[in-house]
Amino acid sequence: MPTPWTLNEDRCFSPDRTVRARARELYEGVRDLPIVAPHGHVPPRLLADPDARFGNPAELFIIPDHYVFRMLYSQGVPMEALGVPTVDGSPTETDPRAIWRTFCEHFHLFRGTPTGLWLKAELIELFGVDVKPSAETADRLYDQIQETLQDDAFRPRALFERFGIEVLTTTDAATDDLTPHAEIQAAGLPVRPTFRPDAAMQVDHPDWRATVARLGELTDTAIDTLDDFRSAIRARRAAFAELGATASDHGVLSSFVEPLDEASAQVIFARALDGSASRDDAAAFHAHMLFEMAGMAVDDGLVLQLHVGSLRNHHRRVHERFGLDKGADMPVAVDWTRGLQALLNRYGAEPSFRLIPFTLDEATYARELAPLAGHYPALRLGAPWWFFDSTLGFDRYLDRVVETAGVYNLAGFNDDTRAFASIPTRHDVWRRTMSSWLAGQVERGLIDEDDAPEMARWLAYEAAKDAYRLT
Amino acid sequence: MPTPWTLNEDRCFSPDRTVRARARELYEGVRDLPIVAPHGHVPPRLLADPDARFGNPAELFIIPDHYVFRMLYSQGVPMEALGVPTVDGSPTETDPRAIWRTFCEHFHLFRGTPTGLWLKAELIELFGVDVKPSAETADRLYDQIQETLQDDAFRPRALFERFGIEVLTTTDAATDDLTPHAEIQAAGLPVRPTFRPDAAMQVDHPDWRATVARLGELTDTAIDTLDDFRSAIRARRAAFAELGATASDHGVLSSFVEPLDEASAQVIFARALDGSASRDDAAAFHAHMLFEMAGMAVDDGLVLQLHVGSLRNHHRRVHERFGLDKGADMPVAVDWTRGLQALLNRYGAEPSFRLIPFTLDEATYARELAPLAGHYPALRLGAPWWFFDSTLGFDRYLDRVVETAGVYNLAGFNDDTRAFASIPTRHDVWRRTMSSWLAGQVERGLIDEDDAPEMARWLAYEAAKDAYRLT
Amino acid sequence: MPTPWTLNEDRCFSPDRTVRARARELYEGVRDLPIVAPHGHVPPRLLADPDARFGNPAELFIIPDHYVFRMLYSQGVPMEALGVPTVDGSPTETDPRAIWRTFCEHFHLFRGTPTGLWLKAELIELFGVDVKPSAETADRLYDQIQETLQDDAFRPRALFERFGIEVLTTTDAATDDLTPHAEIQAAGLPVRPTFRPDAAMQVDHPDWRATVARLGELTDTAIDTLDDFRSAIRARRAAFAELGATASDHGVLSSFVEPLDEASAQVIFARALDGSASRDDAAAFHAHMLFEMAGMAVDDGLVLQLHVGSLRNHHRRVHERFGLDKGADMPVAVDWTRGLQALLNRYGAEPSFRLIPFTLDEATYARELAPLAGHYPALRLGAPWWFFDSTLGFDRYLDRVVETAGVYNLAGFNDDTRAFASIPTRHDVWRRTMSSWLAGQVERGLIDEDDAPEMARWLAYEAAKDAYRLT
Repeated sequence: MPTPWTLNEDRCFSPDRTVRARARELYEGVRDLPIVAPHGHVPPRLLADPDARFGNPAELFIIPDHYVFRMLYSQGVPMEALGVPTVDGSPTETDPRAIWRTFCEHFHLFRGTPTGLWLKAELIELFGVDVKPSAETADRLYDQIQETLQDDAFRPRALFERFGIEVLTTTDAATDDLTPHAEIQAAGLPVRPTFRPDAAMQVDHPDWRATVARLGELTDTAIDTLDDFRSAIRARRAAFAELGATASDHGVLSSFVEPLDEASAQVIFARALDGSASRDDAAAFHAHMLFEMAGMAVDDGLVLQLHVGSLRNHHRRVHERFGLDKGADMPVAVDWTRGLQALLNRYGAEPSFRLIPFTLDEATYARELAPLAGHYPALRLGAPWWFFDSTLGFDRYLDRVVETAGVYNLAGFNDDTRAFASIPTRHDVWRRTMSSWLAGQVERGLIDEDDAPEMARWLAYEAAKDAYRLT
Repeated sequence: MPTPWTLNEDRCFSPDRTVRARARELYEGVRDLPIVAPHGHVPPRLLADPDARFGNPAELFIIPDHYVFRMLYSQGVPMEALGVPTVDGSPTETDPRAIWRTFCEHFHLFRGTPTGLWLKAELIELFGVDVKPSAETADRLYDQIQETLQDDAFRPRALFERFGIEVLTTTDAATDDLTPHAEIQAAGLPVRPTFRPDAAMQVDHPDWRATVARLGELTDTAIDTLDDFRSAIRARRAAFAELGATASDHGVLSSFVEPLDEASAQVIFARALDGSASRDDAAAFHAHMLFEMAGMAVDDGLVLQLHVGSLRNHHRRVHERFGLDKGADMPVAVDWTRGLQALLNRYGAEPSFRLIPFTLDEATYARELAPLAGHYPALRLGAPWWFFDSTLGFDRYLDRVVETAGVYNLAGFNDDTRAFASIPTRHDVWRRTMSSWLAGQVERGLIDEDDAPEMARWLAYEAAKDAYRLT
Repeated sequence: MPTPWTLNEDRCFSPDRTVRARARELYEGVRDLPIVAPHGHVPPRLLADPDARFGNPAELFIIPDHYVFRMLYSQGVPMEALGVPTVDGSPTETDPRAIWRTFCEHFHLFRGTPTGLWLKAELIELFGVDVKPSAETADRLYDQIQETLQDDAFRPRALFERFGIEVLTTTDAATDDLTPHAEIQAAGLPVRPTFRPDAAMQVDHPDWRATVARLGELTDTAIDTLDDFRSAIRARRAAFAELGATASDHGVLSSFVEPLDEASAQVIFARALDGSASRDDAAAFHAHMLFEMAGMAVDDGLVLQLHVGSLRNHHRRVHERFGLDKGADMPVAVDWTRGLQALLNRYGAEPSFRLIPFTLDEATYARELAPLAGHYPALRLGAPWWFFDSTLGFDRYLDRVVETAGVYNLAGFNDDTRAFASIPTRHDVWRRTMSSWLAGQVERGLIDEDDAPEMARWLAYEAAKDAYRLT
C-alpha cells in the first residue's frame, strides 16, 4: 500500500512561521486572479479544433516535454524508449503505456526539481491522483489518467475556461499560417500570436532561402533586395498585429544588437540570397536585423522580447537524430551592458518602444539587467526563464533585481510552456513564491506592510498586462 | 486620512525570532558607535560655509541624487521635470514644489529599494514626517520639510555634529582647490580630502590638456615630459596628505593594471601632449599610471582605492544633455585575478602598500576577491558598492566573502554618498544587516557566541579606520 | 580563566526551529554512515608505515595546510614564521612551539571560516581541547595535543579505523611510485591511488622531459613519438587500475578540451621533445591530451575528474620561494558550455565514460554545469570545491544545481584534503549542511517528506560510490 500523495498547502512558502503567515495572506489576495500568459509555446492547433483531445498520458506528459525526457536521458534512458520521434523516422517506442512505465520507474529523478513540483500538482489537482508514480503504481495511474482524458471536461478548450486564462499568447514563426488563431478567436478564446522571425534572420541556415521564398508568397512580394525583405517582414508584423499580437520574440546566442551601414547590410543580403554568405556575415546580419526590428517596433508598437544566451543544440548527435528543442540547449555567459548599448542609445527612451530581455546568466541580474531596467524607460525585465522558472530561481531573481530596479520595471511572470496542462501550476508557483518573498521583505522591515498587497497584485497579474500592452 | 508611517524597529533583521533576538543584542552594541565615513562624495563647500543651508526639499532629496531621479526616469518621467540641470542650460523645471510633487506621486517606485528605505528613515527620523509621500501628502510634506530646514539645527555643520561623525572624507579631483578643507578643519570638523586623479589619467579626454595645464599651475611645474607629470602628481598627493588625506581613489572600467616600459610610457605621454594619442594609447597609459600610483603609494602610504567595472555614460544622450553621474553608468564583468596580477606581484606584500578594490560584479566576490584578500597582505576588500549598498547586497557580500577572507581582510563600510543627510541611515542599514548576518552565523553554530560582539564592532567601526589608516 | 569552548550540537543547521528539527532527524540517519573519500591528497606514506606518527601540533595543523597559513600571511605574518619550508632551503622557524604560538595568537582570523570550524571540531573532538586557542592558551594546548599524539590510538592507521573510512583515494602523479599503496592494501586498508598526469601533459614545463623520461623507465618504453607516449600513459593507467584506481584527475586553467588532428599533435610532441614547443603549442597539446584521456577512459573505465579554473601560483614570489600549493592559486571565470562541447559531443553519451567536473566559478553552477549534468549521461557534477567546501558554499551549490540537475546527477561529497585528521569533520559539515538544506526544501513543500531520507543517504554516501564506481 503506497503512502498517500498530497499537496502541501503551504508549498513554496518560507518555513519561517511569521513569514509564512503573511505569505498566505498575500497569496490569498492573488491566487484566483485570472491568468495572463504573455509568452508561451502552446500549439495553436490544440485550441483551434473544438474537439481536440490529449491522446494519452505519454503524449500529455512525456513525449513533447524536454524538461521531462532530458532528465531520464541524463541517467541513461534512451530517448527512443520515451517515444521521442526521430528526424529520419527510425523507430522509437510507440506503446504509450510502456513509455509511461519507464517514466514512472524514474520518477525519483525529479525530486527537488520544479518539473517534479509541476507534475505533482497537475497529477493531484487535475487528475485526482493520490499515489506517487513508481514502478508499482504506473499501470494504475495510466488507467486513471487515460480515463480522465476521455472526459469532455478535459478537452483543451474546456481546460482553457477552467484555468481562468484571461489571455494566452502563442509563439509563431514569421511564415506560420495564422488561420488557427483566427479560428480560436472566432470561438471567443483570447489567444494571440507572437511574431518570432528567427528563421528569417539566420541567413546561414540551410532552410533560409526557403523561408524567404515562403515569406514572399505570404506577402505577395518578390524578395530580391533587402528592401523587399524589409517590406515582407513589416507586412507579416502587420498580419500578426491584426490578429492581436502585441509582441515579437527573438532568440539569439549573443546580446549584441548592432546596426550595419546600409550598403554593408545590402551586400550581405545579396550574398545570402545567392548562397555565399559566410558565418560572420550571418552573425552581423542577425545583429543588424534585430536593430531594424527595434526600429519597426517603434513604428508598430510590438513589444520586442529578446531571449539571449542559449547555445542551441549543444549535443549535435541529439540534434541530428531528434531535432530541435530536445533538452540539449546550454546557457552561456552574456554581456548585456555592451551588447544592448547601441540599441538602447537609439531607442531606449522612445515612448513607443518596449524591450523585454530574458537571461539564463543569473550573474547579469544584479550586475547588468537591473541597472539597465532602473534607467532606460523602454526596458522591462523579463521573468526568470527556463531553468530558473522555479521557486529558488524566483527567489534569486527577486533578491537580485528588486532592490535596483524596483518591481515596476519588471514584466511579471510568463510560463513559457508548451505543456498546456501545466500553465495553472506554473503561475501558482510564481504567485506563491513571490508572495513569500514579499512577506519576507515586509517582515524584515524592507517593504511597508500596506504596500505589499498591491505589489503582489502587480507581480501576479498587472505587470505582465502592462509590459506586453495587453490592455 | 493616510495610514501613519513609522519605522520598523527591527528593520533589516532576519524574520527568524531566534536570530532576530541575537541581532538586536549585537546591534545594540554598535548602533551608537561614531561614524567613520572613509569614502564619500559630500561637496566640501557644504561644510566650509558655517551658514550653508539645504535650500528646499527638491534640492535636498531629488535634484542631486541620481539614485532617486533615475528611478522616475526609468518609468518615463523626464529628468527635466525633476529639475536636473542641463549641460547647455536649456530650461528644466525650477519650481521646487512642482519637482517635489512629481517625486511624491511616484514614491511607490521605491518600494523594496534601499533608496526607499533611506528616504523613509531620513523623512521620519530627521524631519519628523509621519505620512508616506504621495500625490495627496506632497504639499503638506513639502511645507513641513521646508520649515524644518530653516531651523539652525539643520545647517550642515549642525547635522555633522548631531550625526556623530568621527571622520568624513570627501572625493576631490587632483586639480581641486583644497581651501574648503582647510577652512572646515580650521573650524574643527574632522573632514579629509581624497586624491582622485582620474581626469589627469585619461589622455584621450578632451579636457586632458587643460587638466595637465592646471596641474602644472598648482604645482609650479612646467609639464613637458612624463617626469614632470610624475612630479606634479607626487606634489598633489603630498598637498592632499598635508590636509589629512590617507587615500587616493581611482575609477576604471577594467581591472587591468599593467606597467609599460619607460620608453613606451614616455612616447605615449608625448603623443598625448601633442594631441595624437590613440584610444589604445589612452588605455595603456591609464593602466600604466595606476601601476605608478601604487609605487607612489608605497612611498607616501596613501591607501589605493580601485573602483572597477562601471561603464560610464552608457546612455550617450543623457550624458550629452545632463552630464556625468546621471544614473546611466552600467556595470560589466571584471577579471580581477588576471587584472591585478602584475600589481599584486610587485606590491602585494609591501607593508606600506594598501589596496582596497570595489566591484559591481558580485560573481567575483567569492571567485576572485575573497581568495585574493585571503592571501595578499596588502589587500583589504572594499564594502559592497553602489547598487549593492543594500540589505540584500550586504547579505550576499558577507555570505560570499567571509568564509574565504574572514572579516579581518574586509575594509568595513563606507557610504559613498553625496546625499549628506543620508549618511546616518546608510551606516545604520549596514550595522543592522551585518548584526543580523552575524547573529545568523552564531545561531548556525558557525561563529562562536562570544566572538560575535567583537566582530560586529570591527565591521561597524574599527575595520574602516584600520583599512584607511585613519588612526 | 578562559570561557569553555564547546561544539554546538546543531552546527550547520538552519536557525529555523522547524527546519532544524527535521534537519536533526535527517542527519541522524546519515551521521554514522561510513566515509567514502573518493578524492583527496593524504600522503600515502602516512598510511604505508604502520608506525607513522604525526610529529607535533605545528606539523599536524599548520605547516602543511595552506588553508591555515595563507590566512595568517594575509594579515602580515611571514610564512617563514610558520615554518613553511623554502625551496632553496633558506631557514624558517623550526621550533614547533613557536609556530604554534603564532598560530594561536592569530586564531581570531578564522572566525566565520570553514577552516575555523574544522579546526574547532578536530581540537575538541579528537584532542579533547576545551579552551579556544589564543596567546594565553597556546602553551597549554600545545602540551595537551603533543601528549595526545604520543598515544598509539593517534597513529594514522589507528585513526583511519576510528574514522570509519570505507574507502580513501589519494592523488598521485603519473610517475609516482605506487609501492606505498601496495603496502597499505597488504595491511588491509581500503586505500586507492588516483591517476593525475598533469606534469606529463605540460610540455612547456621545465621538468617535462624528465617526467617523460621517468614515464619511459616505469613502463619500459622508449618514448620517441606521440604513440610511444600514449602507450606509456596507457600502461600507467593500467598500473593504477591494478592497484584499485577508479579515476584519473586533471587540473587545468581553462575548460577547453579540444582534439588536434593527428599530424598536428605529432608535430607538437616532436617539438616538445626537442625543447622547441611554444606556449601555444603547450596549451593546444594539453587540450588535446585531455581529449585523448577521455578516449582512454572509454576503454578502461577510469572516471575522468576535471578541476578547472584555478590560476596556479598567482603570486610568483611566493611560488619561487615556497613552491607549489601555498594558498596563492586564484580562481578565474570558466566557460564550460563551449569548453566541453567537443568532448561531450564525442563521449558524453558513452556508457563507459564518466566525467566529473569541479569549478571555482559558482556563476557556472546554475548557468552551465547543472544544465549539462541534466542532459549528458556521462556527466556527474563534482562537489563544491576548495573555497566552497563550507556551509554557505554547500547551500549555494545545492540551491543552484538541484532544481536543474536533480540530486542523482551529483557526485556527492569529497573532502579534497591533505589534512588527514580533518576528514571526519569535513564530511560531517557536508552531512549536516545537506541535511539542513533538504529539511528546508521539505518544509517549503518542494521535496516530499518521505523522499528526503533516501536523498540524504544518497548525498552522504551512495552518490560518491556510484559516481566514482567504487562498488
